[in-house]
Amino acid sequence: MFILPQKDSGTPTTSPGSVSTQGLHSNHGDGLEREGSGKPDQKPLKLYGVGDPTAMFSSDSPYLSSRGSIIKWFWDSAEEGYRTYHMDEYEDENPSGIINLGTSENKLCFDLLSRRVSPGAPLGGIPSCKGLSSLGFLGTLAPESLLLASASVRSSALLSPVCPQLSQSDMLRVEPSLLQYPDWRGHLFLREEVARFLSFYCRSPAPLKPENVVVLNGCASLFSALATVLCEVGEAFLIPAPYYGAITQHVYLYGNVRLVCVYLDSEVTGLETRPFQLTVEKLEMALEGANSEGVKVKGLILINPQNPLGDVYSPGELQEYLKFAKRHELHVMVDEVYMLSVFEESVGYHSVLSLERLPDPQRTHVMWATSKDFGMSGLRFGTLYTENQDVATAVSSLCRYHGLSGLVQYQMAQLLRDRDWINQVYLPENHARLKAAHTYVSEELRALGIPFVSRGAGFFIWVDLRKYLPAATFEEEKLLWRRFLDNKVLLSFGQAFECKEPGWFRLVFSDKTHRLRLGMQRVRRVLEGKSQEPRGPHR
Amino acid sequence: MFILPQKDSGTPTTSPGSVSTQGLHSNHGDGLEREGSGKPDQKPLKLYGVGDPTAMFSSDSPYLSSRGSIIKWFWDSAEEGYRTYHMDEYEDENPSGIINLGTSENKLCFDLLSRRVSPGAPLGGIPSCKGLSSLGFLGTLAPESLLLASASVRSSALLSPVCPQLSQSDMLRVEPSLLQYPDWRGHLFLREEVARFLSFYCRSPAPLKPENVVVLNGCASLFSALATVLCEVGEAFLIPAPYYGAITQHVYLYGNVRLVCVYLDSEVTGLETRPFQLTVEKLEMALEGANSEGVKVKGLILINPQNPLGDVYSPGELQEYLKFAKRHELHVMVDEVYMLSVFEESVGYHSVLSLERLPDPQRTHVMWATSKDFGMSGLRFGTLYTENQDVATAVSSLCRYHGLSGLVQYQMAQLLRDRDWINQVYLPENHARLKAAHTYVSEELRALGIPFVSRGAGFFIWVDLRKYLPAATFEEEKLLWRRFLDNKVLLSFGQAFECKEPGWFRLVFSDKTHRLRLGMQRVRRVLEGKSQEPRGPHR
Repeated sequence: MFILPQKDSGTPTTSPGSVSTQGLHSNHGDGLEREGSGKPDQKPLKLYGVGDPTAMFSSDSPYLSSRGSIIKWFWDSAEEGYRTYHMDEYEDENPSGIINLGTSENKLCFDLLSRRVSPGAPLGGIPSCKGLSSLGFLGTLAPESLLLASASVRSSALLSPVCPQLSQSDMLRVEPSLLQYPDWRGHLFLREEVARFLSFYCRSPAPLKPENVVVLNGCASLFSALATVLCEVGEAFLIPAPYYGAITQHVYLYGNVRLVCVYLDSEVTGLETRPFQLTVEKLEMALEGANSEGVKVKGLILINPQNPLGDVYSPGELQEYLKFAKRHELHVMVDEVYMLSVFEESVGYHSVLSLERLPDPQRTHVMWATSKDFGMSGLRFGTLYTENQDVATAVSSLCRYHGLSGLVQYQMAQLLRDRDWINQVYLPENHARLKAAHTYVSEELRALGIPFVSRGAGFFIWVDLRKYLPAATFEEEKLLWRRFLDNKVLLSFGQAFECKEPGWFRLVFSDKTHRLRLGMQRVRRVLEGKSQEPRGPHR
Repeated sequence: MFILPQKDSGTPTTSPGSVSTQGLHSNHGDGLEREGSGKPDQKPLKLYGVGDPTAMFSSDSPYLSSRGSIIKWFWDSAEEGYRTYHMDEYEDENPSGIINLGTSENKLCFDLLSRRVSPGAPLGGIPSCKGLSSLGFLGTLAPESLLLASASVRSSALLSPVCPQLSQSDMLRVEPSLLQYPDWRGHLFLREEVARFLSFYCRSPAPLKPENVVVLNGCASLFSALATVLCEVGEAFLIPAPYYGAITQHVYLYGNVRLVCVYLDSEVTGLETRPFQLTVEKLEMALEGANSEGVKVKGLILINPQNPLGDVYSPGELQEYLKFAKRHELHVMVDEVYMLSVFEESVGYHSVLSLERLPDPQRTHVMWATSKDFGMSGLRFGTLYTENQDVATAVSSLCRYHGLSGLVQYQMAQLLRDRDWINQVYLPENHARLKAAHTYVSEELRALGIPFVSRGAGFFIWVDLRKYLPAATFEEEKLLWRRFLDNKVLLSFGQAFECKEPGWFRLVFSDKTHRLRLGMQRVRRVLEGKSQEPRGPHR
């Protein structure tokens, strides 16, 4: 863990010029700053940007309202790569199909999950054995010993009354109360379980309280609800960019809230210790810029661990950002959906809920979900933790539209309370698999001489392909992305994350070996083909 | 089924004055028109009203946006009765707790549902046996014979490969695809199943298509999404009132869309055949009125079977309403969530999807859910059927915020395809229980000399308590409602349904005998106490 120089939080850092690499984790890293500083065409970047989600909007429908047409356009445009992918997915039966290294999902642990959720289910349709046997890259452990290790831990968990194996699953309980209209905040039994879970895994100094928990169908909904209850139409949140681009839609489609980007860049300057580092100075400048354009900023969004950077904030940094927000009476939404996906032990992750004192607890709202940390994006479970009862109540009121099934609430409570399984089976196994997959991909990238950013958290590596663009434009970035897709591998290009430097790509590594190997072969083919032959009049 | 006099749909009926009782279903009914016409203080009612959902709004929060404060206020105010109820619910252990005859839920079939969903589950915590043995009012059948009848039908269903009893439930399948990001329209396997299900139960002239189906977490969400994609901020939908009052929030909280009430009243006039009858004339007048106030109307909401009237529209009426909408280029949202809860065989129910030709298929959008017809409001499953692909796509785009778990999607597909169980077990049993409960409550009301409206569909009776109000005001209506609540029975008062005549209440009868009997005793006590002793300075 690196330490930021202590400074008066009231005075923004203003010492550009000096370059520091102190604390840069070159072991997960990358040589990035060398690549960055070696670039001759380094232009001063704009330091912030007020988003206009409809800038590219063109289509219209006689049946829809103007906002309805925009909402439809988001579907039509955002899905381009995914539509192509879904029409030609890689499968055992379709080995020439597209490998998806674009969607941030953890596909490494379906075997563990399906065995936990439906222990008595036949393994036929479920790739449990396949899953374990394909872990070729797991260090010195042969697949068989892993299976045994996993099974022995599993059977110790059997002693817990929570996990009766080979019997009726403990996951399917149909009480009348689960079938009736719920408390829209979420059933109390689940909110209690979430409070205990977050207290434990976020290491909160005092037990967290169920009355501060609101449960709903995923963090996308939570962004939508928070934007709507915190902002008027047209107001904005600050967000450090690059960032997970879907948030643009989440706050805009229903809420009509915009994002003001705090642009980070790859060059390490001043007192910075790593590429794309967020500083209070940058936050202040973006806020000032937005104000000068008449845009009212109501909050700040922090993603920690960060997506797509895989970065984590130190407690000192978190405090700085939160104090900045407090000075300006900004709400802070802290998205911690990757908090249990920190697979590199040397990375000390700190949830905002672990801080001894929050600078402005009434304006600090924490988000977590099972989509990433439990590899279940299709389960639709997310949660808000906030001490502000006005915010909790207003979000609850919108939960009529974000409710999740009582049966799923029961399943989630069962899963979250099963600490034996989580601590002894799921997390160690998941982290080992993530680390192995990450090691494989980083070594491939190093062999190709490709710089990247990655600090041991999340499912992705932020890859610097700038040298493969004939010109530093987003058109060229998109062309390279299409070339990957034509060669049957789907990545995500940097512009989708509002990255201001063309040529960055997010590559998701949390997939099974056979797909990952094939995907990386295809990436390599495109990049090597690229350097060997000039691009033809292709598309 | 009654037949409406055929008339030129282009010419609104304008024949007030004459009273007709033709076709009035006095067997489910009520003597209502006698009560109505006997009232001396009959004043001309306003024929429409442009809703202002924030008219009563007062509270404010320093942390919330103005809309956030309104959204919070909806939670704080709307929940008044329910909060009191939830703090003191009637249970076996709390026999002096509040009986809820206010929430429209079907509590008669949890035994059937829990056995279908988790056949191997222990019956301990699930009131299956209790449920069957409490059916005291089921005509000539003793509880024991019912149990046997039900069991024998059940075992014939066992032959179906869909229902393996006493084994692993077919309801808990954990495929990786169910845990990954879904198609936001809903998984194809489920949309196919929904299309087959609706084709069969709506008796569509041609098979319905999966590409016209969008699946989401309940009809509340669907109202929210449709309002947003069809209307600009401040535009409106027409809705015949009294109506299920929550729709006000559903279209307003996110969508900022208002409702223009088409006021119906209890007096039967002109060519009308029943109280609270919707006519094209009333629709035309409300539309004209809204236009004259500068309110842009974009659509019409029809609830069929109607809530709270329990009314169903004939195919002829449906055609008239749809043609009216087509003339004015209005979208029509047809909410059919009670379509399988028509328990009176003589009532011929017709889904809008059964019509040979829709006047304006591109502007006709049908809603259905399992909340009512399968008594599972806590399951959060709803569906849109529309031929308009722009509307389907725009709603799908918003489904990021209304998604339901892949595991629930699997369960729903399993349930909807199990025609043996639905046709041979669930529907006949459910209808018999609804009918028995309805008969019990209607006889109680008749014994009390209380008029009511009810036509054999839905879970509620629309009860005329006007004669119990010392003055025909909503203040008195609310006082009577509070008196019920003080006497531990929760009803819904008419103003919550935008009924313009003070003194109407919705009474939900779809509850177990012991609760229903106790609830009706308490209702009787309040009403009889009322007539015996003058109201003191109570609240």
